[in-house]
Amino acid sequence: MTDFNRHPSSYHHWQLQVDGDIAHLRMNVDPNHPYKPGYELKLNSYDLGVDMELADAVQRLRFEHPAVRVVVVGSAQERAFCAGANIWMLAESTHPFKVNFCKFTNETRLSLEDASRNSGLKAICAINAACAGGGYELALACDEIHLVNDNNSAVSLPEVPLLGVLPGTGGLTRIVDKRKVRRDRADVFCTMAEGLRGKKALAWGFVDAIWPKSQFAEKVQQRAKALAASQPARPAQGITLAPIHAKRDGDVYQYQHVRVEVDAAHRLARLTVHGPSGAQPENGAGYEQAGSCAWALQCYRELDDALLQLRFDHEEVGLIVLQTRGDREALLQVERDLWADRGHWLCNEILLQMARTLRRFDLMARSTYALVDADSCCAGAFFELTLACDRVYALDDDKVVLAIGPLSDGALPMSHGLTRLHNRFLAQPQHAHELAKEPAAHTAAEADEQGLCTYLLDPVDWDDDVRIALEERASLSPDALTGMEASLRFGGAENCDSKIFGRLSAWQNWIFTRPNATGDEGALTRYGAPESARFDWRRT
Amino acid sequence: MTDFNRHPSSYHHWQLQVDGDIAHLRMNVDPNHPYKPGYELKLNSYDLGVDMELADAVQRLRFEHPAVRVVVVGSAQERAFCAGANIWMLAESTHPFKVNFCKFTNETRLSLEDASRNSGLKAICAINAACAGGGYELALACDEIHLVNDNNSAVSLPEVPLLGVLPGTGGLTRIVDKRKVRRDRADVFCTMAEGLRGKKALAWGFVDAIWPKSQFAEKVQQRAKALAASQPARPAQGITLAPIHAKRDGDVYQYQHVRVEVDAAHRLARLTVHGPSGAQPENGAGYEQAGSCAWALQCYRELDDALLQLRFDHEEVGLIVLQTRGDREALLQVERDLWADRGHWLCNEILLQMARTLRRFDLMARSTYALVDADSCCAGAFFELTLACDRVYALDDDKVVLAIGPLSDGALPMSHGLTRLHNRFLAQPQHAHELAKEPAAHTAAEADEQGLCTYLLDPVDWDDDVRIALEERASLSPDALTGMEASLRFGGAENCDSKIFGRLSAWQNWIFTRPNATGDEGALTRYGAPESARFDWRRT
Repeated sequence: MTDFNRHPSSYHHWQLQVDGDIAHLRMNVDPNHPYKPGYELKLNSYDLGVDMELADAVQRLRFEHPAVRVVVVGSAQERAFCAGANIWMLAESTHPFKVNFCKFTNETRLSLEDASRNSGLKAICAINAACAGGGYELALACDEIHLVNDNNSAVSLPEVPLLGVLPGTGGLTRIVDKRKVRRDRADVFCTMAEGLRGKKALAWGFVDAIWPKSQFAEKVQQRAKALAASQPARPAQGITLAPIHAKRDGDVYQYQHVRVEVDAAHRLARLTVHGPSGAQPENGAGYEQAGSCAWALQCYRELDDALLQLRFDHEEVGLIVLQTRGDREALLQVERDLWADRGHWLCNEILLQMARTLRRFDLMARSTYALVDADSCCAGAFFELTLACDRVYALDDDKVVLAIGPLSDGALPMSHGLTRLHNRFLAQPQHAHELAKEPAAHTAAEADEQGLCTYLLDPVDWDDDVRIALEERASLSPDALTGMEASLRFGGAENCDSKIFGRLSAWQNWIFTRPNATGDEGALTRYGAPESARFDWRRT
Repeated sequence: MTDFNRHPSSYHHWQLQVDGDIAHLRMNVDPNHPYKPGYELKLNSYDLGVDMELADAVQRLRFEHPAVRVVVVGSAQERAFCAGANIWMLAESTHPFKVNFCKFTNETRLSLEDASRNSGLKAICAINAACAGGGYELALACDEIHLVNDNNSAVSLPEVPLLGVLPGTGGLTRIVDKRKVRRDRADVFCTMAEGLRGKKALAWGFVDAIWPKSQFAEKVQQRAKALAASQPARPAQGITLAPIHAKRDGDVYQYQHVRVEVDAAHRLARLTVHGPSGAQPENGAGYEQAGSCAWALQCYRELDDALLQLRFDHEEVGLIVLQTRGDREALLQVERDLWADRGHWLCNEILLQMARTLRRFDLMARSTYALVDADSCCAGAFFELTLACDRVYALDDDKVVLAIGPLSDGALPMSHGLTRLHNRFLAQPQHAHELAKEPAAHTAAEADEQGLCTYLLDPVDWDDDVRIALEERASLSPDALTGMEASLRFGGAENCDSKIFGRLSAWQNWIFTRPNATGDEGALTRYGAPESARFDWRRT
């Protein structure tokens, strides 16, 4: 079982220092602590373990240090800001691992941008030395990029010229879509191994400020103070995030509110989420008292962890079968209370956590089927999870209910910005609007009438029909399904975030499989070797 | 040299019948006329040769039969509407050919949609029998889909279940983005080999009308008449499209206004376009008299052909070096006249042809560099071609001029709907707006100041700098460049057309390279074989 829990007190690769409303997050990768043995993490290059700590740090800032209004992302090493993803790690990794690693890295960077947009936590990237590849992609995820103006400090995306792959954790898209750099300058930048320094990096829009080395720390600190002062006031006290643990028993992961049963023989996993039981906080103050064990936070953190376990440790599971359990009214009440007090920082953070977890679910490269039966708690954000599935199988019984909650009208947007109802009813935006505006509970038959179910199954047929549906799905080509689902799940809109996953990642996946990158004579394989790469020159 | 010229009088695979304002385009693929020997084109399955005729037919309808307001796309075979792309052709093709074939097919379908949007030519698809895969993707490109309601006639996208690849010529995107079918229904549809018939196909939004077999022809004809009657009046007489031929001499293709010099040793092609010389038509009536040999039409048809030659016959050419030649003022006058009379059907068609050719250029999976020197005619749509390039190298000399013309303000949109100026200046939309609104000529230095050049080179350095730039580009991984260019060229917006090329095609490219599809035991390879495919089940 992969342990995603990290804590600043035992980070190997980052230093988190909080000082009033400013935090410093300094990269200081320990070369001798790779995630898997076999390579050294030189020059602040990173791997999955480094990124797990970064993801943890962003979470800690949100929940434990809400007073922080600006985080300065820097390096504790003199010679390198960050050399990007470790090349030997990439070269040794399997294709599925590379793809999942890139996706997790992307999601972590998006969480930083989400914090900037929605949590009042701005990020300044302070680049004190060479900043290459994934290092610069991390910088691009920050609000501002400051660079030392000297002969050594440069920003670069050398993947294309050096490795024959893409800057695939958002780099290309963020350059043209987020920073709106001119496309020809982006083209030049992405093909030069050495990157850009000082004035030219600034003039071309790749950084926002340059400073002499002697003044760098001071100027960045000044800017951090000014930026912090321009942000709204923030609460002084946070809550403590307890670690997330599942009890693993063979192929079963049992969390407090989430259960995963892996059925390896059928290449599927049954994922069950449970609603709240017992008294729940009624407002932000109550959530501050309850801490991270409150259901609304604990449940979605557990679900997040469960999804990552499936991605990294169960590559052959092609189908996730979602079931919801619990007390519908209790769940909806929790959401109503959270929504009513959404101006409270902690209610806001909990809602944002739910939204990110749902987006992680949308982006699973696995088929997802929801089963809705008489024991289901298909309500609120669990209804959103159901809608996030490729298909919804509902039992035709009056006791089966699908209940839309207060969060379906925009609180939990998909990557491309649409609500799941809007995304489902692209042809009937008014219908989506009405369903969300007057959230109501529907029997399965009514829900089917409203277009919320894929199949309404007679109780007599339920067992057989569901079994056949699962078997059929599990028999199809996993690659074709991944490409199909990525195309069908996100209709209509598109934005920088969704272009990263839909366009850039798809190209990167292709390139990762090509002999020109990962073949015996490919550029990624041969990086650092005496012979240079040999290419099949045919363009496609 | 690949001959893309086709003529209805010698079609092997289609019948084009024009009857007043309605045309019938019937697919009747000759199984014994494959594009390359080695497979039979059974059941109206298609290959590149079939699609060349379709592309020709759409062009003929636009230019030769402007009176046609509705084209009914049907089949002349009883047993099949269309079985999609020929599977044995796909299985035998190289990866670059498959990708280029899909791209050409996509572009042809987009030209049908372009005609519907901009030429008053609506398309009704009349599906009289089984309609599978690429056959249904063709239907999706039409404005309306009519289906015989019987036990045999079904629409389907069986690529995922049968072949382990995607419906990759637009199918997935058109279902959810154009037809706005519910994503879970799209998921079901795309995983069922048998597809949907009659009432269910209609209820789920996959077709627009169903009719009993006995009434089908009559009902479709009635609908075609009604649809034609609802369209604006169209001109009676068209012009004749003469064939496009280059004189090929070794590695040189010499057209009348276009020249391609392939430099195989350096993996580049020099593409030179020439502006008009001599008297040109001044308005639509003049263009009707001049016919297809008028420069404004001939030049872009030649360029279109040249781009296709490079795609299919010169896969190893990684870099296109664009040069423009001719009389700037004469070229701009042609464009001013076309634009002034754009309400005339033929001026409109010529402008649309220019726009499509420029989009074909945007979508070349090759690097594109423009050289602008004292002999250049970098003006109007040739300026647009220059902007379409990944980089612009301009000689710093007052005789070097870049002149924006009247067509840069929206007449020649990119696939994603933006003008090339807007796409270039995403960070300064006002600047793009001002440059387009007051089209002016700029010296190279002024143009560089305005952000229109990538490099302004001193005459002393020109030869060396350009040579080095070309050599550097040609040394980089062709796959990484393809993915990078696809990501950097299209910033900001996204629509159905651009999602087809950016998202769907990228996934399809990946899947085409995967052993699960094209390996010895892959689904595409094993289609029709006694053993079923064997998959590597790891999801990515």
